[in-house]
Amino acid sequence: MRTVAVVSNRGAQRLASGHPWIYRSDVAEPPTSPAGAVTVRDGRGRPLGTALWSPASEISLRLVDRRPDQPLDAAWWLERLARALDRRAGLREHASAHRLVHGEGDGLPSLVCDRYDRWLVVQLMSAGLEAFRGAIIDALLEHTGAEGILARNDAALRLKEELPRETVLLAGSVPEEIEVEEHGVRYLAAPWTGQKTGAFLDQRENRALVGAVARGRALDCFSYHGSFALHLARRAEHVTALDMSEAALRRARENAQRNGFTNIDTREANAFDFLRDEERAGARYDTIVLDPPAFAKTRAALPTALRGYKEINLRAMRLLAPGGLLFTASCSYHLTKPLFLEMLEDAAADSGRRVILRELRGQPIDHPEVLSIPETGYIKGALLEVAD
Amino acid sequence: MRTVAVVSNRGAQRLASGHPWIYRSDVAEPPTSPAGAVTVRDGRGRPLGTALWSPASEISLRLVDRRPDQPLDAAWWLERLARALDRRAGLREHASAHRLVHGEGDGLPSLVCDRYDRWLVVQLMSAGLEAFRGAIIDALLEHTGAEGILARNDAALRLKEELPRETVLLAGSVPEEIEVEEHGVRYLAAPWTGQKTGAFLDQRENRALVGAVARGRALDCFSYHGSFALHLARRAEHVTALDMSEAALRRARENAQRNGFTNIDTREANAFDFLRDEERAGARYDTIVLDPPAFAKTRAALPTALRGYKEINLRAMRLLAPGGLLFTASCSYHLTKPLFLEMLEDAAADSGRRVILRELRGQPIDHPEVLSIPETGYIKGALLEVAD
Repeated sequence: MRTVAVVSNRGAQRLASGHPWIYRSDVAEPPTSPAGAVTVRDGRGRPLGTALWSPASEISLRLVDRRPDQPLDAAWWLERLARALDRRAGLREHASAHRLVHGEGDGLPSLVCDRYDRWLVVQLMSAGLEAFRGAIIDALLEHTGAEGILARNDAALRLKEELPRETVLLAGSVPEEIEVEEHGVRYLAAPWTGQKTGAFLDQRENRALVGAVARGRALDCFSYHGSFALHLARRAEHVTALDMSEAALRRARENAQRNGFTNIDTREANAFDFLRDEERAGARYDTIVLDPPAFAKTRAALPTALRGYKEINLRAMRLLAPGGLLFTASCSYHLTKPLFLEMLEDAAADSGRRVILRELRGQPIDHPEVLSIPETGYIKGALLEVAD
Repeated sequence: MRTVAVVSNRGAQRLASGHPWIYRSDVAEPPTSPAGAVTVRDGRGRPLGTALWSPASEISLRLVDRRPDQPLDAAWWLERLARALDRRAGLREHASAHRLVHGEGDGLPSLVCDRYDRWLVVQLMSAGLEAFRGAIIDALLEHTGAEGILARNDAALRLKEELPRETVLLAGSVPEEIEVEEHGVRYLAAPWTGQKTGAFLDQRENRALVGAVARGRALDCFSYHGSFALHLARRAEHVTALDMSEAALRRARENAQRNGFTNIDTREANAFDFLRDEERAGARYDTIVLDPPAFAKTRAALPTALRGYKEINLRAMRLLAPGGLLFTASCSYHLTKPLFLEMLEDAAADSGRRVILRELRGQPIDHPEVLSIPETGYIKGALLEVAD
């Protein structure tokens, strides 16, 4: 049984430029061993490191260590996870929910782990990683003392690895709902059934930013469980939380009650329709948040998505009173930062307003975006001010 | 004497898209009046607003008001300047030096005004604006109660307006040196002779950011008067302030003394040579700042400039210890945000390090960058972390 993968020159170059993935087409000689750890060599036999091996996946190899023949034993996982946890050291003070492991961004390809107070939710997104499930769970329990670990392995991506889609308890117990505290606001996360691992942790610092600058009449589009609306409500006089799902808005109202906010109203509506109608009606807001779902789920969807992003941003700009603030974001991986900025420039030019770029936002410290691994980055945002 | 300018369709479209400039080639019928305010009309006679008129300049008209025939009287300047000053209201608490007027960004084309404690420094960069010098100075004095106003009208751009290059006192008196306080650090500004209006105010918040995260062995390249070095010194164990000018470093040492910092050493050297030599010598730093002068002063200089930016960033990445931080900036207008990011991605890929994009930085609140007026934006920066 051969536990060595030989990769093409192109594959070797990819590793040299800091990207950990080797596609199937760049594997000259695959290992004969089952999913797990293998040593990677180039065509001349030079060792390039140790990788996770996924026999069924288009992404065959994920480099985890520059040392060849590196045993991925308990000590290795403990050490690697410790480094990931260290960078979140300061976060817990402000936020009881945050990401502990952001896959490739933490040198732990295809592993996601989020902390919700005393519980963890993991996602094991490759067959090579799945082979080390026991060691990973043990190491996480040892580092965090978590009361339970849930695997939200229900993402479709798992099918490409020939892994089952499942939501399973891996250790202890994990409640249906967990109260989370985030920069002074409390909300319920739903680890078993909610979006992603139970909440949108990646906008946490952007919510805090918006909470610090909000004022007057505020509008939170695509509000879902009201996570931005809750922060808006701290300083704004009144907040409209908009979503197409009444079930999501029910949760938003519960979250508002939980914080004692009486200045949030929910509104079940399509954001595109609502913004258009409000513009026609001559409505005015002082603070608007646009945090839509990914409009561009594929590269092919990008042109249509760009029109959608531009439309909502243009309308939001027009709806703002002079001096009003717009926080706008996109979580579409295919919408790059340059395209996002260009879209905002287009919208601003059409809006007839003087729109100031107050702040550019990337990913928070617990979702590290690595410059040489584009796939680690997907969120971009901007705080805009409509001057007059 | 005709005080009306008729502009081409292209000119009118430019105004409609939020840009206030009309180039000479888009003026169909120029006014016959001297430099000052004129009404702008399109080819069909429809009024587009009121503009500053510069008979000798390539930029003939600068729109200042959407209302035609708007008298730019004392009341108009008072009101417009009040709006600009309002947006800086919160700044004075942390920084006794900041920009009060950022030209087009504040709807006041070709006017710059910086506050240094109790004194102001202005730049009047067009003939149309110069015609209102008296009203502007009166309004500034009324709003700020400044003890003196200096005009640093020595920029070469004034020649294109057929205006003299001069540094002249316009009101009261202004000292040769002014002590400035900035986020807990003090330094001397030199309004009469220093760079720009006496200091680099546009990096103020970036200096504060760096001051909050610096640690260990720190290096400030292109240090000039040590403004980044002073902030680094608050948390770093030791700071090397690097500059090619011994005169600038003398000022840096004086500023260090002024703050009682004993952990700053200055080093007279070319940053390119120094970084290369340090890399060869295997040196290691924990915090590095790269705030170079504009390498790309023209569009033609961009390719060479990009090589320069990439070289210093690549070397800085390699010089950082694991977990080390790099704050890197560019103030080249021609190096756009997308090009800046691409350059950093290139450098990161070549560095052999895992480089995390911790924060993207644009312009501070007192240098408003308007999305539809690219010329209002020139600074971009990034806080990077070299993970391992």
